Amino acid sequence: MSNISIDQQRLMRRLRELGSIGRDTDGKLTRLAASDAEKLGRDQFVSWLHGAGLEVVVDRVGNIFGIWAPDAVTQREPVMIGSHIDTVINAGIYDGCYGVLAGLEVIETLRENAFTLARPVVVAAFTNEEGVRYAPDMMGSLVYAGGLDAKTALSTIGTDGTVLGEELNRIGYAGQEPPGFLSPSAYVELHIEQGPVLEREHLRIGAVENLQGISWQRILVEGDSNHAGTTPIEMRKDACYVAARIVTYLRDRARASDTPTVATVGCLTLEPNAINVIPSRATMTIDLRDPYETRLHEEEVALEDFLQLVAAEEQVTISVERLARTAPVTFDQNIVGLIERAAEMRGLPCRRMTSGAGHDAQMMARNTPTAMIFVPSVGGISHNPKEHTTNDDIIAGANVLLDVVQKLLG
Amino acid sequence: MSNISIDQQRLMRRLRELGSIGRDTDGKLTRLAASDAEKLGRDQFVSWLHGAGLEVVVDRVGNIFGIWAPDAVTQREPVMIGSHIDTVINAGIYDGCYGVLAGLEVIETLRENAFTLARPVVVAAFTNEEGVRYAPDMMGSLVYAGGLDAKTALSTIGTDGTVLGEELNRIGYAGQEPPGFLSPSAYVELHIEQGPVLEREHLRIGAVENLQGISWQRILVEGDSNHAGTTPIEMRKDACYVAARIVTYLRDRARASDTPTVATVGCLTLEPNAINVIPSRATMTIDLRDPYETRLHEEEVALEDFLQLVAAEEQVTISVERLARTAPVTFDQNIVGLIERAAEMRGLPCRRMTSGAGHDAQMMARNTPTAMIFVPSVGGISHNPKEHTTNDDIIAGANVLLDVVQKLLG
Repeated sequence: MSNISIDQQRLMRRLRELGSIGRDTDGKLTRLAASDAEKLGRDQFVSWLHGAGLEVVVDRVGNIFGIWAPDAVTQREPVMIGSHIDTVINAGIYDGCYGVLAGLEVIETLRENAFTLARPVVVAAFTNEEGVRYAPDMMGSLVYAGGLDAKTALSTIGTDGTVLGEELNRIGYAGQEPPGFLSPSAYVELHIEQGPVLEREHLRIGAVENLQGISWQRILVEGDSNHAGTTPIEMRKDACYVAARIVTYLRDRARASDTPTVATVGCLTLEPNAINVIPSRATMTIDLRDPYETRLHEEEVALEDFLQLVAAEEQVTISVERLARTAPVTFDQNIVGLIERAAEMRGLPCRRMTSGAGHDAQMMARNTPTAMIFVPSVGGISHNPKEHTTNDDIIAGANVLLDVVQKLLG
Repeated sequence: MSNISIDQQRLMRRLRELGSIGRDTDGKLTRLAASDAEKLGRDQFVSWLHGAGLEVVVDRVGNIFGIWAPDAVTQREPVMIGSHIDTVINAGIYDGCYGVLAGLEVIETLRENAFTLARPVVVAAFTNEEGVRYAPDMMGSLVYAGGLDAKTALSTIGTDGTVLGEELNRIGYAGQEPPGFLSPSAYVELHIEQGPVLEREHLRIGAVENLQGISWQRILVEGDSNHAGTTPIEMRKDACYVAARIVTYLRDRARASDTPTVATVGCLTLEPNAINVIPSRATMTIDLRDPYETRLHEEEVALEDFLQLVAAEEQVTISVERLARTAPVTFDQNIVGLIERAAEMRGLPCRRMTSGAGHDAQMMARNTPTAMIFVPSVGGISHNPKEHTTNDDIIAGANVLLDVVQKLLG
């Protein structure tokens, strides 16, 4: 398919270099959006863009673009490769940075090999993907895709009381271009999986065809607190038992699903929480995800029905608070096919899969044919210093990206 | 059966009077063992004993006895009626006090009716039944029955740093008699049910034939915390799901039991307890009760087996800590039969039942033929200012006690 490959040493060196910026005295890596540490990361990235001979543009919300647009094709819609370089607190070095630096690496490789572009190619680093300092997450790409206006985004107040617009000004990354100034013909994002599937199945490449919709709810079960010794089983209104029924129901539904439904009860607290008192209240959260909107909706409705059923059976009151809801995203079948074929040509075992985490790609997919490439995460770990992907997988993923981008540019 | 009945007004008046002692400025009732408030309650009880012409004896651990022993029968084993007058924090007026004051009422009624005793009759108020200030609970009757030596009990340090022996001295209730100085031929305790069974079944009297054994365990489930979106259901080691399996297992077992087994998960906490993170740890308590030792042991063994099974199925580690274990108590069939017949003769619907709570009677049953009489608790509520039993039921219970004691004295 391709007779060129990326420069392995250069990509690995840059990953390590960017990963060394923002370390505290204990060696912990933290580059929160628009912080001093992230400014240093942005400066390093921009200097690499300049070194590669790319035009550097910063838009109003601080998204950074490195553009290669030969005169003959400037009027055509570019292919965009992107991700982010902000991090969570005490992060690993791959999340986001891998997609950005591999994008730069692909463009440099094409330039060094005098590849003839049919359209421009752009690498993007979006502002505040992690959402740790400013909410919501994926903010830069959300604004870029028109889902949030720039003014609102810039006036966001952070967890530390700062205002995003002021912080971008302070660090020198409040640009002039309106977000969305380029309308790409395609968007591709390379990312670590952040889950265990590829490693467990001994695969090297994931062709990500969709991204889960997320439904977050908080459930309050109210029964009666009574004496654990004197209250017969059939007379109990036990909030803990009802919570347990909900937990096992969700697991049974997810197991029986013919789509990759996942359901998680992450928070659960009981009141009064005493060893010999039947709990009167259980407060729990439900995180429900599915890559298909109809299925996610079906699961939400089924849960609602089940809550009514179990409330009646156990004579408790159940109230539901919706905390968040995002629709699933379906990626572009053509680009997903290109990823599969590129992996096949390079002899890399590959499967179509669903992204369980949120990514800038889901925002870009609103207006642009989009897909993602995943590489294995050792132990499925991310958002953690132990986040790791082998060098071989890092390089393999970047070469698949190179091949896919070449096709999209052809 | 009997042509005499207790003095309703006197019993109700004394219940209200004792219930007025130990109220704080908000009207909350608290008479913790050997406190200033409880001294006032003891003083009132002792003055009633003297007023009834009874001999008053206090033993080394502060148990108070009101004895009617006509010369002709002093050498015979007495019939003992008893309970306690200490309370929990913010208590109701019936728990314990009812049994003590009804005991006094029965003795006074017998005296007033010139009943001829074949043996002495004694009313007892045992020290520190509730165990709120000093552990363990039911301490006075435990010492009386020989289950704990007096010296150890007296050196117990309270939750407020006080020493029980010093406090009994201070309030004037460190007596001289060795606990166990009387060996009763029978012990009867009248008590509010503290559960919902009699009220729900429209019964007036419970003939308590046994008392549940209690098994308390703390369970720690250790799985893996992982991303709620990227970790497929079949790859999870979800501590919350395993905890839920244990909760529903316990309920299913209790429901299927042919004995009155109850099982309660009162405490449950998750770590890290975040909405989008699969819980790595669940810590929960299990309160398992059954009135038959073989059944309680069977349930413990079955739980152990289930924990092994679910740990293997879900690939988690489960560790168990035993917190407490008491054996079930079987009461005296003869006295239980007397209670049933007394209720029948007075036209009071009655059933045999199990006590789900602990009582002084379970200690006395170590050496003495013992049984308990229960009356309905409105809403099953106790240990709460809302604790209530109707006057009719209070009086009915005291009359059944009168009839049973007459039979035991005959």
